[in-house]
Amino acid sequence: MSARRIETIPELRLAVAEARPLGPIGLVPTMGALHAGHAELIRRASQECGFVVASIFVNPTQFDRTEDFQRYPRTLAADLEFCAAHGAAVVFAPDAAEMYPGPPLTFVEAPTLAEKLCGEFRPGHFRGVATVVAKLFNIVQPDRAYFGEKDAQQLAIIRQMTADLDFPIVIVPIPTVREPDGLAMSSRNRLLSPAERRIAPALYQALLAARSRVAAGATSAAEVREAALAALAPHKAVRVEYLEIVDPALMRPVERIAAPVLAAAAVWLGAVRLIDNVFCEPPRH
Amino acid sequence: MSARRIETIPELRLAVAEARPLGPIGLVPTMGALHAGHAELIRRASQECGFVVASIFVNPTQFDRTEDFQRYPRTLAADLEFCAAHGAAVVFAPDAAEMYPGPPLTFVEAPTLAEKLCGEFRPGHFRGVATVVAKLFNIVQPDRAYFGEKDAQQLAIIRQMTADLDFPIVIVPIPTVREPDGLAMSSRNRLLSPAERRIAPALYQALLAARSRVAAGATSAAEVREAALAALAPHKAVRVEYLEIVDPALMRPVERIAAPVLAAAAVWLGAVRLIDNVFCEPPRH
Repeated sequence: MSARRIETIPELRLAVAEARPLGPIGLVPTMGALHAGHAELIRRASQECGFVVASIFVNPTQFDRTEDFQRYPRTLAADLEFCAAHGAAVVFAPDAAEMYPGPPLTFVEAPTLAEKLCGEFRPGHFRGVATVVAKLFNIVQPDRAYFGEKDAQQLAIIRQMTADLDFPIVIVPIPTVREPDGLAMSSRNRLLSPAERRIAPALYQALLAARSRVAAGATSAAEVREAALAALAPHKAVRVEYLEIVDPALMRPVERIAAPVLAAAAVWLGAVRLIDNVFCEPPRH
Repeated sequence: MSARRIETIPELRLAVAEARPLGPIGLVPTMGALHAGHAELIRRASQECGFVVASIFVNPTQFDRTEDFQRYPRTLAADLEFCAAHGAAVVFAPDAAEMYPGPPLTFVEAPTLAEKLCGEFRPGHFRGVATVVAKLFNIVQPDRAYFGEKDAQQLAIIRQMTADLDFPIVIVPIPTVREPDGLAMSSRNRLLSPAERRIAPALYQALLAARSRVAAGATSAAEVREAALAALAPHKAVRVEYLEIVDPALMRPVERIAAPVLAAAAVWLGAVRLIDNVFCEPPRH
């Protein structure tokens, strides 16, 4: 069975208005190419809401590189069945002209939170993300919206935006779903060659090394960072774009670790960019 | 009689939720110091809506100069009666801590529309305006929102934001209300000295000179602009900040006049800054 596919904003608004008496409206924004991580988002939404809208939109304004946009996996037919199987009532899958009928001239930004990590290497990315999520919030007007913790900086920016702009929406973070070898689920994983796929779990292992150091009482972010980088060093095929120990709300590097932090990294394996992060708690005294 | 005053976001949301079955919700965002221009906004809103919220908030983030923020007239007790008299059910008058409980880190911008005119001389002003209006839209979730044409660049930016971010809100523009001598109503007029007040209508007269030239068939924006500036020249106390012939949607100067334009200006009279604009239509052939 496929989920009902809706392609226009007025039709989606009508479907949501009709469903509102059934209970809370849930929104799961995605770019499609759905995997077990998305399944968790949709499943959780369907447990908590009377009506779940999954959106599938490969948003051009958040891609800093055209070839990344073009290569991004698109599997709409399978995604429609996947959404229905996990409990979404409707899939909102607009085309670019529906979302951007004219040149977009209004932008939503949280520059402090977007300055480092992915934001530093993907100029304009989080402006595109925040703007399209604001649009989806206004189109669907959900009561709850679900985002994966794998995209930690995105999640922080959406939370900040929701609070700062007073969207009456509860943001629900969903823990990262991993392959048995630890690799975080990602639509981009399917772009890896078999050899790259075998090496890919090294990213998570490196972040776990950071977590161990923090748990063991390390308070120097530089030392923790070096431990994680050392774990990656044997893997010559892995090119580190960034690996940082950051404040989980502001997504800015810390020097001393006196409260929980995120170890967050982006690496390249050939032409594929992977990101991951782990939450690191200092020991309690 | 005073309008019901509400100071917190949760209380306002509750009042609006209770009123929603009565018909459309109208929002009239203001900074207080209400005058006959605001009366038109509220009156029109109360004709078209079942429940009208007037907001009164002197938004600190849209002031580029601290002394302008401090000098801005504040007349809350009178404003509450004024709102009730013209048909507002509720006045939302939060303090700054209610609107900005933490440092604001998210911003809404329409840089193309904010580059010229007031935006050029008031850095950050329209970012502050667009952001606080987005907040008010999410707090009130009105069906219709009312803005004066006197603040033409603000109106253009709000319209663009509403369309680009898919706010399900109808933006209703209200024509400028003027004193018998043509001076546009403005909260800042009460800061003028008697001598300045006598000169102030020269601004509108200059813009009418531009309109006459356009109506007579002038197609050179430079020529129309010179005609308006010439009308101001005899008034030595008037310092022109800008006077431009612009596209009414994008608020950018045009060179040739082939469609309706706005003649828009800001001038200083002593320490008081006044803005005004008139719509100019070329002759039909």
